[in-house]
Parts: sequence; structure tokens; C-alpha cells
Amino acid sequence: MQAATQATGRSIIGGAPVCDGEPIAVMFASIAPADGSAAGTQFVCATAADVRRACEGAARAFESGVLAEAGTRAALLERIATNLLDLGDTLVREACRETALPGPRIAGERDRTVAQLRLFAALARSGSWVEATIDTADPTRTPMPKPDVRRMLRPLGPVAVFGASNFPLAYSVAGGDTASALAAGCPVIVKGHPSHPTTGELVALAVADAAKECGIDHGCFAFLHSGGERAVAVGRELVSNERIKAVGFTGSFKGGMALHQLAQERGTPIPVFAEMGSTNPVCMTASALASRGAEIATKLAASITASGGQMCTCPGLVFVTRGAGLDAWIESLAAQATAQPRQVMLNPGVKAGYVARVEQSRPSTTEVGGTTTGTAGPHVLRTTLAAFIEDETLHEEIFGPAAIVVECELDEDLLRIGEVIRGSLTATLWADPGEPLTGRLMARLERIAGRVVFCGVPTGVEVCPSMVHGGPFPATNQPHSSAVGTLAIVRWCRPVCYQGVPDALLPSELRAKNPLGVRRTVNGVVE
Amino acid sequence: MQAATQATGRSIIGGAPVCDGEPIAVMFASIAPADGSAAGTQFVCATAADVRRACEGAARAFESGVLAEAGTRAALLERIATNLLDLGDTLVREACRETALPGPRIAGERDRTVAQLRLFAALARSGSWVEATIDTADPTRTPMPKPDVRRMLRPLGPVAVFGASNFPLAYSVAGGDTASALAAGCPVIVKGHPSHPTTGELVALAVADAAKECGIDHGCFAFLHSGGERAVAVGRELVSNERIKAVGFTGSFKGGMALHQLAQERGTPIPVFAEMGSTNPVCMTASALASRGAEIATKLAASITASGGQMCTCPGLVFVTRGAGLDAWIESLAAQATAQPRQVMLNPGVKAGYVARVEQSRPSTTEVGGTTTGTAGPHVLRTTLAAFIEDETLHEEIFGPAAIVVECELDEDLLRIGEVIRGSLTATLWADPGEPLTGRLMARLERIAGRVVFCGVPTGVEVCPSMVHGGPFPATNQPHSSAVGTLAIVRWCRPVCYQGVPDALLPSELRAKNPLGVRRTVNGVVE
Repeated sequence: MQAATQATGRSIIGGAPVCDGEPIAVMFASIAPADGSAAGTQFVCATAADVRRACEGAARAFESGVLAEAGTRAALLERIATNLLDLGDTLVREACRETALPGPRIAGERDRTVAQLRLFAALARSGSWVEATIDTADPTRTPMPKPDVRRMLRPLGPVAVFGASNFPLAYSVAGGDTASALAAGCPVIVKGHPSHPTTGELVALAVADAAKECGIDHGCFAFLHSGGERAVAVGRELVSNERIKAVGFTGSFKGGMALHQLAQERGTPIPVFAEMGSTNPVCMTASALASRGAEIATKLAASITASGGQMCTCPGLVFVTRGAGLDAWIESLAAQATAQPRQVMLNPGVKAGYVARVEQSRPSTTEVGGTTTGTAGPHVLRTTLAAFIEDETLHEEIFGPAAIVVECELDEDLLRIGEVIRGSLTATLWADPGEPLTGRLMARLERIAGRVVFCGVPTGVEVCPSMVHGGPFPATNQPHSSAVGTLAIVRWCRPVCYQGVPDALLPSELRAKNPLGVRRTVNGVVE
Repeated sequence: MQAATQATGRSIIGGAPVCDGEPIAVMFASIAPADGSAAGTQFVCATAADVRRACEGAARAFESGVLAEAGTRAALLERIATNLLDLGDTLVREACRETALPGPRIAGERDRTVAQLRLFAALARSGSWVEATIDTADPTRTPMPKPDVRRMLRPLGPVAVFGASNFPLAYSVAGGDTASALAAGCPVIVKGHPSHPTTGELVALAVADAAKECGIDHGCFAFLHSGGERAVAVGRELVSNERIKAVGFTGSFKGGMALHQLAQERGTPIPVFAEMGSTNPVCMTASALASRGAEIATKLAASITASGGQMCTCPGLVFVTRGAGLDAWIESLAAQATAQPRQVMLNPGVKAGYVARVEQSRPSTTEVGGTTTGTAGPHVLRTTLAAFIEDETLHEEIFGPAAIVVECELDEDLLRIGEVIRGSLTATLWADPGEPLTGRLMARLERIAGRVVFCGVPTGVEVCPSMVHGGPFPATNQPHSSAVGTLAIVRWCRPVCYQGVPDALLPSELRAKNPLGVRRTVNGVVE
């Protein structure tokens, strides 16, 4: 199938662009943040009727079992990957235009998106992720006969995905949430991000084409344009719709918690998996400063400013211990951070938010080197542990290329990090493994983070089975989950247990002959 | 150690009964529901200071790593099991007196409680439940080197457990929640149920003794008496305490949701795992009625009235299809249910609630055979599918020995169960496996239940790895979890991921040499 290379400006429902919008539609434009110019296409915001229709189509597709077979899901994901690659330069160019992110970064993100789709295709095909667990009957057991009981993970139903502004491909229309939900067997409805409607729609068309090519009911995927005065309403209508059974969200704390609250207030509450960013504290002992200070400053400066600091895992707080050369180290960190090429920010809202957060942080900090007040360039601020503890505005994320260096008197003071800051996606420790304090610091950092990095940087999230991209509140509202890696699939499922069910009525994964050859635990033994 | 065989009437904090209560303490008594008589001991309700002290002790114990070693946790659980058995007849007698449940039922529940403790001891010792997953480094990978990433489940911290009135042993002080939380490495604070304070305290003393015998910091377990005017306040103070990291609850929808709400409103929200009971629908096709109606009626009558209908899994709704002999079948079901020995209910509140719910159900139902209005004996009510759909009061649990038989015109009408009733712990189907409708009915029932039972009864929850005792809202507020079986342990954990961490700083389960010999997934392969 020839890939569509132009956006129509319409939501994709029922496998095709919606062409019969309500007479008074809300329109919005695709703006290039680099120069504020609008692309030619006008985008039509999804109406309430569009949202309903997408939800009903998804529920019908789910009930009719179109995603029931693992092979079907795997084929769909693989085809989406191929179709994304087929979009070639068009997709990369549009994503660059709409986000101002550099070409190599977007090309890399496209490759990661394709790799994620293939990873989840392989996971779906293997089937072993369902945690099939079988306890066979023993009718002779006393005092009560033992029944035959079997359990596996089963998909929840239609999932709503809210794409991220900062990952227009890897955490957007066909990103990790969509790939993992489809792999689990859940139809997906994506609320497109208003910052990159062209990119979103091109990917959505590629997904819809993939479903068509695989002969899968087009209810399994829909894409809703949202922008202008309806940007928030589309999301609310989607999460409130009783057909939707779970929500994936990547974005701000405020946005994530609003959806979480809304989902709790439904007749039947549903889980919202909100990845809401974090401060990603880094902790450096005096001996690490002494032995590898220069290396640390260089790596940290690059990590703080990566993609203009617009990554969930950019380090925003750096706890250091007073030691010989600390002042020079901080100067060097600031000099290297501010020397990074200036990155145009994702959209005017992100830029305004960044500038405001930096200004909020000024009363309790001093700027080291750095950029002129009021601009969106890198900032390195400096404060003391006491001042940091006092001023809670410093405990919240600054989304952008800024970091606050928090100076502690003693290495032991670093232990207080576990008390004074909130949950984070990551926590990083630079220390000598042999230092007596290192183990205690690791234990503290583990309490506040989903991922603990030792002598490295938190940016660059490896997509693999062991990854945890999550963490204690407020990094996420669901600390037991991960938004990245194969663990992400279980978010869209719940365990179901079958007691005394005849073989022919069981899901394939639980049948006696294990026709799909999935890994199972049978009477306590992994087979 | 000599087991304590008498309750002191005091909460157990710091390993011993609290003897320095506030001058004006709230007192309450242990009432035998059979005759309303009070035992001699007066019970002192935990004060706000007691709650704080218990929470601080638990947090200290957790931080100091007293439950860090799997062997320690296993030994503690095994010792608790032994100590419970050592209580012998005393424990069974007190539990019978305080709940009015029959001796054999309580003795069986004691054995189940002991078996659960030993199951979780074995699970802790095996270590394989931590889902250890390792992806090793590849420094030569391009364009980015691959880091070493390792993940496992880690305990959340102190857990508050709210015991159930209907399982004074298996879901109370040393029941499934406590056993699974301790196995995970979480200290436990139990809020005792006011209906059985003697039983609760005897078990609490056995747990405290076990900790002492194992040389474990007594902060790892506390027991709070709660009754009278402070019964609710103790629970609120416990869940609001920032030291508490998760909550286990078994009880009413109202109680569970109140705790859930409270936990969401904290500075740092925490998960409440509330198992809130359900209607446990049973569904019988016309052919099942024809081929094995008599057997079904007998089994159902026993299941409806088991333990006076005071089990989370007692069937409360029976959907049947009009067929030859249906009227006689319903009469037979009612006759057998009402012929069961009358069970004194757990406490006056449960009895009053039961009587009120039966009365609320009368306008849309007719009574079949049955007990006099206003008494707490078994009731079988009958209605039509149309009347059932109309009257939402019928969709809620009646906690007690009552069932509503809902008559459908056609077998196809049974498919509507998936739409018209809410989430349930279980759903049961009596049908011929060969009937064309059976597969579709199974698919519908699966959507509303945590466990689907085929041609059996839902009561009698097998404690095994494949069990799911949970289900869609409102059966629980956490449909991805199970309160029974080994799956229960993961409720008290979250995954933590370690990147580039030197071997000596990793938890044992993730170290290169796998010193504990746990099952691990290494680079995608299970070892």
C-alpha cells in the first residue's frame, strides 16, 4: 500500500479520515516552533460524536475478538513498523518541523519506535508474557478435593493513549503505550498531541493502513485530532467514556493527575498510567569529585541539556559534597552546559513554563555562569541543602535544560536526599564502590526512584526486559508499573483464573497441549 | 516460648502489650454474637500516639533492613505458623466464641492460615517471585553502548492490614495479607477487627513471640486494638500516616472505598488493596437444568449458605433460563437452602445489614419458600431479568445466606449478564461444554470476574499460585491484583531497576553468581 505522505487534517476513525465533521468545527494549525510559521493544512478537532464513535468501534472490535490471536497482533505491529519506515524522510522532516528537535535525534527516535514495535511483536508472538500458571486437580485430596485452576493475563479492553510532546514518535501515536497495548490485545484510541498534528496523523494513517493490510477490523485503532479550545475536552470525553478500560499518559504532573482524578470519578474507575516526569536527582560524593570530577561534569552537562533538557530523565538536581575544587567543578559544569547548542523548545507553552520555573527557583539559588534571565537557554543554579529543604518550589521538575546544584556539608548529608525529595523516575550516584557510605546511599536512592544509575547518566532509556521507567509518586501515579520495556505490556491486562474449565473452552495458552508453546508454571515448576 | 493463652486487652507495639495508655482510654468488650455476652477482658483502643509509635517502629525496622534477608522472613513465617498451632484449642475456642462460626470451620480456617504462612515462607525462601531480570552490557553496540540493566521486585515499606470480620484467622492478624507482606519484606501493622479482639490479640502475641524467637526487631509487627468510638479513627490515623506505604483491606465496599479515598488524598498517595466482596453470579443454561438440575440445586444451596453466607465468594445471583422444570428447580433450591442449619451471624451489624438488604430487595422479587421476614435465616428470592435490570439495588451484594434467582426467557439472554452486572470476584457457569453458546458465555463472564468457575461452586478458594481472588471494580479497586495465593505477594512491591551497578552493591538476587539460586531471566532466557 502506498503510504500517505500528507496529513488530511482529519481524525482517523474506522480506518479512514473523518470527512463529515459537525458544521461548526474547531480548527487548529501545525506550528513550527522554530519560526512560528503554520503549515498549510488546517486540522479539525475531533467532536464529541467522533470520540463516541471511536470508542464504540474499539469496544466492538475488542468484543468480536479481532486482536485475540497473538499471531494477528504480532503481524499488525510488524506491519506498523514497516509502514513507519516506508514514510522515510517525510516523517522525519515533519517531526523535526513540528518539534524543532534535530534530525539525527528524530531519526534515532524513529528507529527506536520501530524497534519497540518489533520488540512487542516478538513478545506477543512468544506468548510467555501472559504468566500462564497451572495447578492441576487432585480429586483424592482430603479434606477437600483440589480443583483444576489456571491463570493468565487477559487484556482489559480499549485503551486511550495520550501522546507526549517531547517524543513525537516513540511516546506518541505508535509509541510504547500503543505498541504495548496492541501487543496485549487492547484496541487503542490515541488523542493526538496538538503540537505535532502532522506527524501524528501520518503515523496514524500508517497504523490504519497496517490494520487494513492485515485484514484487522479498523475499530482496533483510532486517532483523534485535538487542539484549540477542544484540546482538553477531547481528552476528558475519551477518559470518561465507559468503553475505555485504561489510559496511558506521558506529560505533566497536572495533566496526569487531572486524568487520574477523572478516571477515579467514573461509574467504573479505570487505571490511568501517568508518567509525569521528575527531577532525576544525581548525587556525587567528595571522593567521586576528587577522582573523576572532570568526567562527571562533562557527562552531566550533556545529560542536563540533551534534547534541550526536554526528556523525562534529564537530571534536574545535583547533590554534591563540599570538597576541594567543588566551586571550580560547578563552574565547569555550568560552562559546559551553557556552551551546548541552543535548542528551540517544543512549543511556546513549554518555553513559557520553563522560563517561569527557572524564575521561581531564583530566590533560593544563585546562577552559575549561564544564560540571560528570561531566555530559554541552559541554566545551572546553585544552592545549599538547607535552602533547598526550605524552598519546596525547588523540589519540582523544571522541564528544560536547567539543573540545580545542591551543596551539602558532608557526604553523610547526601543520605538526606531520600527524605527531602519526592519520587523520581531515576536517581544517580557517583561514588567509589568501596566507600563505606556507598551502600547506604544506594539504599536511600532506591526508595525514591524506579531506576538507580551508578556512575552514569539517567538519559538514554534502554528498551529492554529489565527496564523500569516509572517510580514512586509523583514520578508516576502507578509505582508498580513501567512505561518503557516489555514490562509495559502488563499495564493493559489483569489476571483471570479459570477453575474446572474444559480444555476446549480455555484460552490456547492454558490448554493441556500448550499449542502456542508458551512458558508456563505447572504445579510450581516452570516448563 | 510459652504461648500466651489470655488476651491482655492491650495493643501489641514494640513486641509487647502497651501498658501506658492515655489516662482517658476508649474501652470496648469482646461480645459473643451467640448470646450477646461479654468476655471478662476490657479492650483498650489504640490511641493516636500508639498508632504513631507503631508506624515509627515499622519504618525504623524497614530502614534498618531487619526483613531484608529471605531466610529471615521465611523463618519468621514458619515460626508464626508453629506458634499458631501451639495455641491449639484455645485459639479455636475463642474464635468460635467471637464469631459464632462452627468449630470445624474455624479449625479448618486455622489450618488454612498455617498452610498460607508456610506457603509464603517457601515462596520467600525460593526467592523466584522477585522476577529477577537481567540484561547484560554490550559496550560495543552502536550507535549507543548497551548498559548493564537489572530489575527485581522490592518491598514498598510498612503495610497496614485491616482484618476481615468473616475470616478471623485466614484474613486477619496473621492471615493472607500479613503473610504475603512479611514474605515480601514489609513490616506489618494490623488494625484488629472489633468483632474478635481476643482472637486477634492471641494471634498478635503469637506473631510478636515469633519475631522475638527469631531475633527480629519487634518493629516488624504491631497490632492495634480498635473498637467503640475510635474504631474508625484508628484506621484513618493508620492510613494517613506517611510511614505507611500500602494497605490491605478485606470488607465492605463502603469501608474499602473510604480507605482508598483517604490514601489518595495523602501528600504521597499509596495503594489500598481492597477486596470488597461481590455478587458472584451463577449462570445456568436450559440444558444444564435438564441434565443435572438436581445436582446443581444441592451444590448451590450449600454454597449460598456456607458459613451463613458470610463468605466473599458466596453466590448471590443465579441467572437461569426458563425451561421444563424451572419452577420446581427453584423450589428445590429454596427448600435446600432454607433447610440448612441456622447460623448466628458474625455480629449485630452484619445481621442488621443482611436483614436490611433482603428487605430492600423485596419490591422487585418474590420470596421462594424461605424464612420469616426480618430474620437472618436463608432467603431465596426470585425475579425476572427485566425487573433485575430495572432495580439497581439488586445488583449489589447481600452479605448473608441469600440468593436472587433471575429468570431469563432464553439462553441468549444470559449473555446480557456481562452488561448488566458489575465486577465480581467470581462468575460461575453451568452449561454443556458442547453447547454453541457456552464459549460466548465464558467470554462474557470472564469480563466481569477475577475467577470463572465451570460447573462448580465459587466458595472454597484454593490457595495456590494460579488463584486470582480479585476482579473488576467494585469487587476490588485494584483489578490487577489477587488477595489469595502466591500472586498476593506482588501487591507489596514495586519493580526497581539498577543500571551499571557494581556486583557488590546489587541485591543478592541480581548478583553475577546468583548466590540464592533464584530463577532469573537473563538476556531473554529463563535460567
